[in-house]
Amino acid sequence: MSFDVLQEKIRAMKNPTVAGLDARIEYVPEYIRQAAYEQYGVGLKGACEAIYQFNVGLMDALCDIVPAVKPQAAYYENLGWQGMEMLERTIRYAKSKGLFVIADIKRGDIGSTATAYAEGWLSGAGIEGQQFKSFDADCVTLNGYMGSDSIKPFLEAAKAEDKCAFVLVKTSNPGSGELQDVKTADGRTVYQVMGTLNESIAAGTEGKYGFTMAGAVTGATYPEQIRQLRADLPHTFFLVPGYGAQGGTAADVKYAFDAQGHGAIVNSSRGIMCAWKKTGGDGHDFAQAARNAAIAMRDDIAQFVTVE
Amino acid sequence: MSFDVLQEKIRAMKNPTVAGLDARIEYVPEYIRQAAYEQYGVGLKGACEAIYQFNVGLMDALCDIVPAVKPQAAYYENLGWQGMEMLERTIRYAKSKGLFVIADIKRGDIGSTATAYAEGWLSGAGIEGQQFKSFDADCVTLNGYMGSDSIKPFLEAAKAEDKCAFVLVKTSNPGSGELQDVKTADGRTVYQVMGTLNESIAAGTEGKYGFTMAGAVTGATYPEQIRQLRADLPHTFFLVPGYGAQGGTAADVKYAFDAQGHGAIVNSSRGIMCAWKKTGGDGHDFAQAARNAAIAMRDDIAQFVTVE
Repeated sequence: MSFDVLQEKIRAMKNPTVAGLDARIEYVPEYIRQAAYEQYGVGLKGACEAIYQFNVGLMDALCDIVPAVKPQAAYYENLGWQGMEMLERTIRYAKSKGLFVIADIKRGDIGSTATAYAEGWLSGAGIEGQQFKSFDADCVTLNGYMGSDSIKPFLEAAKAEDKCAFVLVKTSNPGSGELQDVKTADGRTVYQVMGTLNESIAAGTEGKYGFTMAGAVTGATYPEQIRQLRADLPHTFFLVPGYGAQGGTAADVKYAFDAQGHGAIVNSSRGIMCAWKKTGGDGHDFAQAARNAAIAMRDDIAQFVTVE
Repeated sequence: MSFDVLQEKIRAMKNPTVAGLDARIEYVPEYIRQAAYEQYGVGLKGACEAIYQFNVGLMDALCDIVPAVKPQAAYYENLGWQGMEMLERTIRYAKSKGLFVIADIKRGDIGSTATAYAEGWLSGAGIEGQQFKSFDADCVTLNGYMGSDSIKPFLEAAKAEDKCAFVLVKTSNPGSGELQDVKTADGRTVYQVMGTLNESIAAGTEGKYGFTMAGAVTGATYPEQIRQLRADLPHTFFLVPGYGAQGGTAADVKYAFDAQGHGAIVNSSRGIMCAWKKTGGDGHDFAQAARNAAIAMRDDIAQFVTVE
């Protein structure tokens, strides 16, 4: 149940990391871009095809190293409906390679609207009594500012196939404190209220590892806050962005894990996708460079975290 | 600047309301669905085409009554990339009819990711030094839980064409209080902190009506809170959902407006889209029923609000 599928994959690979697939055209080596532009022109379609080729190469190189990928929806929506079509293909390809797919959509809406999102991303749209799948991710990220109404419909949609979600709690960005760190009248912070609310909403959905279906996003750039959240939220699985390019270290992220090395997964996007920019080459080595970066990240975290 | 375009349209029509385009297949009369299924089959494509025909009929019937439409992205994403393609077409059609388009996407992400969303929805994707537009709305809704990092990139992207955004402050749903009403140590509530933060982020972008580029979503179901927010946030334009089906009345929404009847727009989705379900017919009158409902809403609100 719940995060069991992901935790099992992490255990099998002894690697609690996820590779971000942030589809920025600037990340794609020029030889791939040029080939796509020659076939489809410089534009949305050409960019989509270049990024898809890049994504496929990355996934081929990473699928026996990392248990999961996290496509960031913004970079696909950036390219309009054609980007979304390419995202569907990317997710389908990831799953064909055995990768667990966390769609980083940060959606947040209510009631029947949240259900519509949940169907699109997890369980499939209901049309005339039949279900039709499209994005079909294993997991999504959510924004819970609107309360439990914005989380429960996703848990409902996730049930049938044992999918799951991560809700934003303490994010990794510089401005995250502007709202999230505001002190509440009872001596907590807004993000602690959000984390506790989220764990209570999902209470009763714990799987065999003890984690509910509703995980939390907790940024690596705030290690002290992660340590406290790990203690406060024993049943919440953590997605930890901010390792690498944003400044979070392996020593920082270790606090996200429990004593068995369970309950968390650390994301790296640029550090893996753009590793080729640091090899001195022209990008033909992007897949090998990404693989090397993913192995280095796994080994870096293994110095501090042992997944039992 | 900023909300001037929308305020001018509202003044011209003497109607501070927006019609939601919540593309649920259940809202589409059977004769339209059947025709689409015969041509495209029962499935995502068939549903998209049925909804598009419905949207076009609604917009044709409403475009001289309401100044704006608000497509809810969830119902398009529900249908995968084909839904997103249909959303692009819907937005294009709306603009061709002179309607101001508020894309209800409630996105919230940071830095370059927020920029990617903002480009996709407002200014166009940057590819090899050129800009390529896709969704191209006039305005979007945003979730500011992650702080100013998640709002500023949209204001930046909105500048060039005088577009704008609404940030969630106090939402209309039953669970909105779980986080938003939490009392802060300084005696405010989380939603008040969010509202004030949002107004300060956009300070300096006021247009000729005195409103910044970053409006706020304030639910009609909480009239007392709207009254207070109107007083606290004199430079913030309000988007008010929750009128009609959710229980908000014209007497409730009047508090969202300033003394000139400016600074707010009230949304109705089901009340207009599904008006045909209350006429006793089979849906062939859906456009006229929607038009009548939109006129009734305009006249209802006019009892309490005079737009100068």
